[in-house]
This record gives sequence, structure tokens and C-alpha cells, in this order.
Amino acid sequence: MHFVNISSELIYTIDSAASFVFNIAAASTNHQKTLEENLTLSPAIDSEWCQLNDFGCRGLRLKVEPCELSIRYSATVQLSPETELVQYLNEVEHKKLPTAVLPFLNPSRYCESDRLGRFAWKEFGQLQSGYSRVDQICNWVNAHIDYVAGSTDASSSACDVLIQRAGVCRDFAHVSIALCRALGIPARYVSGYAVGLEPPDFHGFFEVYLEDRWYLFDATRMAPISGLVRIGIGRDAADTSFANIVGQATMQSIKVEATSADANLLYNNGDPVSTA
Amino acid sequence: MHFVNISSELIYTIDSAASFVFNIAAASTNHQKTLEENLTLSPAIDSEWCQLNDFGCRGLRLKVEPCELSIRYSATVQLSPETELVQYLNEVEHKKLPTAVLPFLNPSRYCESDRLGRFAWKEFGQLQSGYSRVDQICNWVNAHIDYVAGSTDASSSACDVLIQRAGVCRDFAHVSIALCRALGIPARYVSGYAVGLEPPDFHGFFEVYLEDRWYLFDATRMAPISGLVRIGIGRDAADTSFANIVGQATMQSIKVEATSADANLLYNNGDPVSTA
Amino acid sequence: MHFVNISSELIYTIDSAASFVFNIAAASTNHQKTLEENLTLSPAIDSEWCQLNDFGCRGLRLKVEPCELSIRYSATVQLSPETELVQYLNEVEHKKLPTAVLPFLNPSRYCESDRLGRFAWKEFGQLQSGYSRVDQICNWVNAHIDYVAGSTDASSSACDVLIQRAGVCRDFAHVSIALCRALGIPARYVSGYAVGLEPPDFHGFFEVYLEDRWYLFDATRMAPISGLVRIGIGRDAADTSFANIVGQATMQSIKVEATSADANLLYNNGDPVSTA
Amino acid sequence: MHFVNISSELIYTIDSAASFVFNIAAASTNHQKTLEENLTLSPAIDSEWCQLNDFGCRGLRLKVEPCELSIRYSATVQLSPETELVQYLNEVEHKKLPTAVLPFLNPSRYCESDRLGRFAWKEFGQLQSGYSRVDQICNWVNAHIDYVAGSTDASSSACDVLIQRAGVCRDFAHVSIALCRALGIPARYVSGYAVGLEPPDFHGFFEVYLEDRWYLFDATRMAPISGLVRIGIGRDAADTSFANIVGQATMQSIKVEATSADANLLYNNGDPVSTA
Repeated sequence: MHFVNISSELIYTIDSAASFVFNIAAASTNHQKTLEENLTLSPAIDSEWCQLNDFGCRGLRLKVEPCELSIRYSATVQLSPETELVQYLNEVEHKKLPTAVLPFLNPSRYCESDRLGRFAWKEFGQLQSGYSRVDQICNWVNAHIDYVAGSTDASSSACDVLIQRAGVCRDFAHVSIALCRALGIPARYVSGYAVGLEPPDFHGFFEVYLEDRWYLFDATRMAPISGLVRIGIGRDAADTSFANIVGQATMQSIKVEATSADANLLYNNGDPVSTA
Repeated sequence: MHFVNISSELIYTIDSAASFVFNIAAASTNHQKTLEENLTLSPAIDSEWCQLNDFGCRGLRLKVEPCELSIRYSATVQLSPETELVQYLNEVEHKKLPTAVLPFLNPSRYCESDRLGRFAWKEFGQLQSGYSRVDQICNWVNAHIDYVAGSTDASSSACDVLIQRAGVCRDFAHVSIALCRALGIPARYVSGYAVGLEPPDFHGFFEVYLEDRWYLFDATRMAPISGLVRIGIGRDAADTSFANIVGQATMQSIKVEATSADANLLYNNGDPVSTA
Repeated sequence: MHFVNISSELIYTIDSAASFVFNIAAASTNHQKTLEENLTLSPAIDSEWCQLNDFGCRGLRLKVEPCELSIRYSATVQLSPETELVQYLNEVEHKKLPTAVLPFLNPSRYCESDRLGRFAWKEFGQLQSGYSRVDQICNWVNAHIDYVAGSTDASSSACDVLIQRAGVCRDFAHVSIALCRALGIPARYVSGYAVGLEPPDFHGFFEVYLEDRWYLFDATRMAPISGLVRIGIGRDAADTSFANIVGQATMQSIKVEATSADANLLYNNGDPVSTA
Repeated sequence: MHFVNISSELIYTIDSAASFVFNIAAASTNHQKTLEENLTLSPAIDSEWCQLNDFGCRGLRLKVEPCELSIRYSATVQLSPETELVQYLNEVEHKKLPTAVLPFLNPSRYCESDRLGRFAWKEFGQLQSGYSRVDQICNWVNAHIDYVAGSTDASSSACDVLIQRAGVCRDFAHVSIALCRALGIPARYVSGYAVGLEPPDFHGFFEVYLEDRWYLFDATRMAPISGLVRIGIGRDAADTSFANIVGQATMQSIKVEATSADANLLYNNGDPVSTA
């Protein structure tokens, strides 16, 4: 068990009345508890927290008139990763998957797993199934895709990135998720805070359903798995944008932080971390 | 209120053990009740109904060893469409949408609404908002897309269809959904049975969230709205396949029927039908 | 007959030995003669003019060691547009097209005419064939695509632009060319200088084969047709880049000018101009 | 030097007047001579041979009224492959490439080399340049793409095939060409007859410019390089369709043959064959 301090500050210029759903607060799961949190809005307008899904994710909804909007969120989060031995984490037979997990086998906007069946089976079909196969998918993605800031945009999908061989964290997650689903392994996208990420920013990673729960993976290898704090969980980045906006708003600045006093945050390799 | 008799028979040759989730049973909603239903499996293997989502959709899960599998489902469904006056059906302001509706604003595998913002606003942005705008989107889709059997495949998306200008029912629904979402109107895909559809088959159509609930639309105009029986509800066809299969199975035949003694089944125009 | 003064100045920082083919000089056609021209390279390295194709286009080839490279080209060009009456310009029956024209019916990298057959025939198939149909294609493109600087990149094709409904001059040309070819009308891409273009830059437009020769069109309507000076001619922008570079070079600045003393430069409508 | 007998018979039902350009005759190059050839058209309509390009390719143009059209072509072709030692075949520096070769560095409809730069350099950038690098590209394509009849259609491009990992001969050629161009190696598409191809059909392969001429490659490894007879040469399959048709014609049958008395036809490995 360890503690992570997270914070984010977003500033927008609002040119006409705009409606927001912010996706910046820590989710509540069996392995992630928020001990205290603060929210400051300026101007001090009404807002309401809402439950976004059954996975413990919250959104902050508000509507704002023309102004300069600043939103600052901070929290202390307790993470209780349940580290298990890698060899016990099996893929789950289709018939035995919980029904609630099935949608995460379907292709989604940025993860066209339906197009990647042959690709995935040719590259990863012969590997031993289970945790190690997913870990090798992460290795493959990490080796074949270059992390290049600005190389993709909001419409880039896993297939686009597999062709251009460059992307950012969300693209690494999308490619990994698409390959997992193509193999029949449920996978979902997670947005979050990440201790040690350089430069600091919101991060995108993913979870895979193994044995009897969801396990975190991050193909970028840019931050310790044990220091990842979940915000949004969904099919892909389309579900977890840190701000959904209807109206005219221009982001002026963004500042994100995640720190921990715990020096023992470990990397993904050999360190699976359970959640939910 | 009226009654529709539906049935479907699917026959597969199973070459190796295969796991199925069938999506062929009538959903249960406030306006759609199943009065009686029969399911016959041959061979008589174990199967279980499962609740697929919060919208009343059921799946039938089973695993089968090599054999010739036949599944026959039939039901009598009571539809209670609540017809309302078109002029009262407004689009809902973003801030006031129920949180559970928000995911149906997001782009999905076959409905890339994120790419179609300018397209949708140029074509439909000046129209009066509400039911009539969605109806005009259906008119536009019906006029600009040709219904051509075999013109698309399982990987065809709304953008593909807008370019090639041909598709089948699922494509008509995908294009309509993508355009609605691009305008900020929540829309979701519905698979179902359709009285009067020629040739008889499973059908694909969609629902739009207006005022305070979901309303049915069908841009193909190939069957009366009042005679549509919902099976699956999801983001797009990726969520509502009539059979998700893991294993080696070859479909040998499919037979689908939907009949009604009610001669008064009406078409979409001027006949919105509520659901939920 | 009238005269246009053109010039361009390009400055690059060369980090390692780089090979260039510049495509910035006026082409020589029956209706376009270069009266005088100047080329200044700094440093004063060797270069050679080469004939790029059978349409009168020239490239300047050179290889340069690490340095700051500046290339300045200027010329006075005599244009002799042969204005004809619109009603005499017919499309040419396939069997009667010169063999050399046939490749311009084929789809190319940025003009996927093979995917647009139904689109083109549904939108333009009923129009009277000939010059006026091409002019109406230009009108349609101009009305349906927004000119938005920065909205596309080097990989954007006609189909991409038809979906996103925004582009720059090269995209307007690509969409128009693709639609013409889909109708069986030969069309090719032309890069050039344009009197009156704001802001001044290299321009992209296109030519269509009617009656017995190629006619200029510009769906952007941003500059007079009579003031267009052809540089490169090819299947699409892939063939006419103003600089093809192998090696590491970073463009520092670009300055393009085209001016004419002739006040009577006319716009496309009702003013076909023959070439070649 | 050896001899290949080729023949093809195509039968169409013509429903309305149709114009054809057939691309089925042997090309004339320095290393490929047609000794005798026969053409039989039924009905006996007028037709004319035309020179399609500067590479020795011929088309047969004709226009036909509604009828059943049969075209039968046969020829004896003398091939004089000039086998050279692999180690002498270098890639050519960009500055030294003949200008006529430059267009074959550009991306084309089915070979989006502009999108594959990083892919190609990551996979093949470290290999020794020259013939062996192209040969290894063929090996890679052969190992990573499955030959699956019917897996692609007329709109499938190199990028599509790299994602779905299946294709037919034209797709193997397109992927190889795109990868070569992305590395700065000129490559072009060749359609032809192939001794030993099973099942017999028109074949698609490619040529790469090395040292001072074009060399044949075939990533399918399905037929001996020495038994390939060139028909069409172009940027990709868009330029070399065996029949370009304007009008309503339905192909009823196709029969293609290529035989040789020479048992020594060799496979590509270690057997480069010069052309042109």
C-alpha cells in the first residue's frame, strides 16, 4: 500500500456558454481509495459530480457563461496493488468470462480489433497464453512504435499507428488493446495520473482481464505501473477525454502532477497489479 | 398496443468446440414486453440467458462440441408505442442529458462522429433542432445512400459508406448515428426484427435521445417503425451481432420471421414511437 | 496575350548532404512561354535542368553539402490563353481519347476515383456533359469544402477531404480531379504561380481534357484562371512537389510572388483557357 | 535465352456499346522479344494497337456493340535474361537516378510510400543496401502476408494489406513497391504471364531500379522469375488492368496460359534478371 498525491489545473477562455464534463478525478476501485480531495473552481460556479459507469469513475459536470474558467483538482490517493505471481494469471476462456466483460472484446473507434485478427495471431498466436503474452504484446508495441510527441491527432486509430509506427501514450494503449481483443483477450482503456511521467501530463494506459479481474499494463514503459492512478475507464480514449466540451472554449494552460513518497514504485515487468 | 410474432432459426456446423453469445431474443423495455417465448436447441445442450446491459437486452451463452447445431427461437411480443406529437420532441441541452446517455455522444468503431463535425453542421446545422432534424437526416441518408446488398462488409464504417454511397441496413444506421452524434445528439444502434421487411432478415436501425427518452428511427424506410422489435442495443453493430462466436463454426442457414395481425403499422414519418 | 512576372525564394538549412529536385520553374507549353528567367543559387553550387515529362515541365537537380542553401528563381512568362466558347467544349468519348491521355483516368495516391464512382454519378451524372459539368463540379467542391489553412497534411486524400469537408488548394484540386475521373473525364494536377492569390504562395489547381486539349480549372476560385502559370503537371500533388528532397534539410523560409500589369485577368466562370 | 508460349482468352457479354483497352500482349523490351503472335476477335470487329508508354507496353483499343465478345491472344516470346552477380547490384544515389526513373519514387494509389517511411526504415534501414535489401523485403512480405484468394478487392492498398496481413499477387507487389519507395528505391508494378503459376492466371509482380536498369522481383515466390513475361508496366495495378472498360460488359470467362520447354527456369533467389 502506498500514497500518491495528484493534482491538475486547467484554464480555459470561454467565448460562449459552454457545457463541460471533466474527467480528472481519481476513480474508486477496490485497490484505489481517495483519502482526501479538493476542487476549486474560479469563478465559483455550480458543478456536480456524477457516476460515469460501474467501474467507479466520476465526472464533474458544469455549465459556464463567458469568462476565464480555472479548475483545480487535487487529491491524496491510496493504492493497494495486490501483486501476484505472474504464472498464475491465465487468460479466461470465452464461455467463462463475466457478461459485463464481454463488451471489451468488441472493436471500438480507436481499436479496430476486427481488422487485426490475422496480424495478432501471426505475431502472438504461438506465445504461451496469459499474463506473459500480454507483456510480450507490450514489448512488441514498445519496440515497433516510436514515441513521438505530435505524431498523431484526435482521429488516429490503432491501424493508423501500426502503419506510421509512431504515436503517443494513447496510441500505445490503443494498439495494445486492439491486439489483445483480436486475440480474444478483453482489454480496456484507462486514463490517469502517473508518478514519474516526464514531462508530467495526463497519461493513457490499459487494463486486461486475466484470471478473475483487470490488470494494469502500460506499453510506453514511461512510468511505474504501481504509481498509476486511474481516472477514466472505457473502451478507448473516446470514452475518457479529460474534458468533453460543448460550446466555445479555448484551453489556455494545463498543469498535471503526480508524486509519491514511496521510492519502491516498480515497473511493469514482473510486477502485475490487480485492480477492481 | 399490438402484437408481433417473431422467430429465427440458425443452423451451424461446428468443427471444434465453440463458445457462442446469441443476440436474438426480444429485449424488455417499458414499451416492449415478451408475452411468451420458446427456445429449442439441438442437440439439447446447456445454455444460459444473461443480462447484457442496462437496456433490457439478453444474450444466450452456450458452449458446444463439434456437431450440427440448430437454435430456434420464437416469441410473441407486445409493443406499446407511445405516439407523441412531433413538435414536442426537442433535442436536449448537453448539460441536461442524463449521465447514462453521454456515452452515446462518443464516436464508436463504425460511427466516426469525430471526423464528421463539419460535414454534419454544413448539411444539417441550420435545420430546426429536434425530431424533425433527425427525420431530415434520415431523409438525406435515404436519398444519398443506395441500398445494395453485398456492397459493404464487416469492416465498413460510416465514413466508408459516405464515400461509396452504398450500403445495407446497418450502414444506413451507422451513417445516421454518426451524423447525429456529430451534431451533439445522442444516438445508439438497435438490432431487431422488423414486420414487413423484404427479404425477411435481422434488421438494423437506431434510436435517438430526445426530450426525455429514446425514439426509434430507421433511415432505410424499409419497414414500419411500429413493427420493429428490439433485440440488441449498443454503440453500433459491433455491440449487437446476432452471434458472437469463438471457435470454428460455419453458418449453414438462417431464417428470420416477424409478422403481425395489426394492419395499422405505420411508417416513421409523423409517427415517433417512444421506448426505454 | 499577357505577361506575368513570377518569383520564388526558398531558404534551407542543410544538416547533411542532400539531393534536391526543385519544381519551381515555369513550364513550356503552346500557351505559356518563358521570355526571360533568372536563377540564383547560394552557395553557387552546380545544378542542372532536366525535362520531367512530355508536358514541358522542368526540374532543377542539385546536390548540396551542409550549408545554408538559398535558391531564388524569377521569370517573365507570356501567357496566350485561347479563350473559346463554353458550349463547344465537349467531353471526349473514351474510344477517341488519345492514348497519352488515358493514364489521367486512373486513380492516383490522392485521387481515389475508383472509390467515388457512385458518388460522382449520383451527384453529377445527370448534368449535361462537357465544360459546364466540370464547372459545376468546381462549384460543388467550392460550396461543400471549406478552405481552412492547416486542416490537411501531406497524407490527406480526396476521400479524406470529402469526409472532413475542409482543405487547402491541393485538396480542392484532388477532390475535383477524383470526381472527374470517376465520371470518365481525364483530369490532371497542376502546380503553379497565381496572380492575385492571397496570401501569396505556390498554388495547386487542375486541368481537364475536353474536345482536343487540356483546360485549366481552379475550384478554389481564389485567383484568376488567366493568371495561372503552370510549373508541374502530374497525376496529383505527389508528382509536383516544389521540392523533392533526399537528406536532412529544414526549410527556413519561402517567398512566392506573381504579378501582372494586365488588369483584365478574368475568373474561371465563362472563361475557359486552353493549354498545351 | 529461352522461349515462352503465352495465351489468354477472355469472353464478355456486352449489354450496351462498350469501349475497351486490353492490356494482354507481351511488352517489347531489350530482354523480351515477341517472335510471333496471334489475335482473334469474335465478332471480327476493328481494333487498333497503341503504344501505352515508353517502356514497350501495348494496348489493344476497340469499341463494341452489344454482343458476346471473345478475344483470344497468343504469342511466342523470347526472353534473354541477363543474369548478373548479386553483389554488383547497388542502389543508386538519388542525385544520379535518371530523371525518367524519378516518378517511381512517388507514392501512388495502391502504394502509399509516403505513410511508410518510419515503418520501412525501422524494418529495413539497417540492412546492406542493394539487391539483397530488396530481396529481404520480398522475404519479409512473403513471411508476413498470407496469400489468400479473395481476401482483397479493387480498392485494397499496401497499407490495408499490411494491416490485414493477407492478399493476392497484386497486393504482395504493392506492399513491396511501397516499402522500396519509402526507402528511396525506385519501384514499379508489372503485370504479366508466369510460367508455372498455379492456378494459371495473369500475374502481378514488380521491378526495382538498381545499378543502371530495372530488375524483376516477385514476393509471392509462386513462379520462376525467369519465366515471367511482362505485359503492362506502371506505378501500380491502377495502370496495368488487363481490361479497362467503359460501358456495360460482364466477364463470362477467362483462361490464361504460359508454358516453356525450358526446364531450367529458376526462382528469384540468387537469380536477378535484368530487363529494359
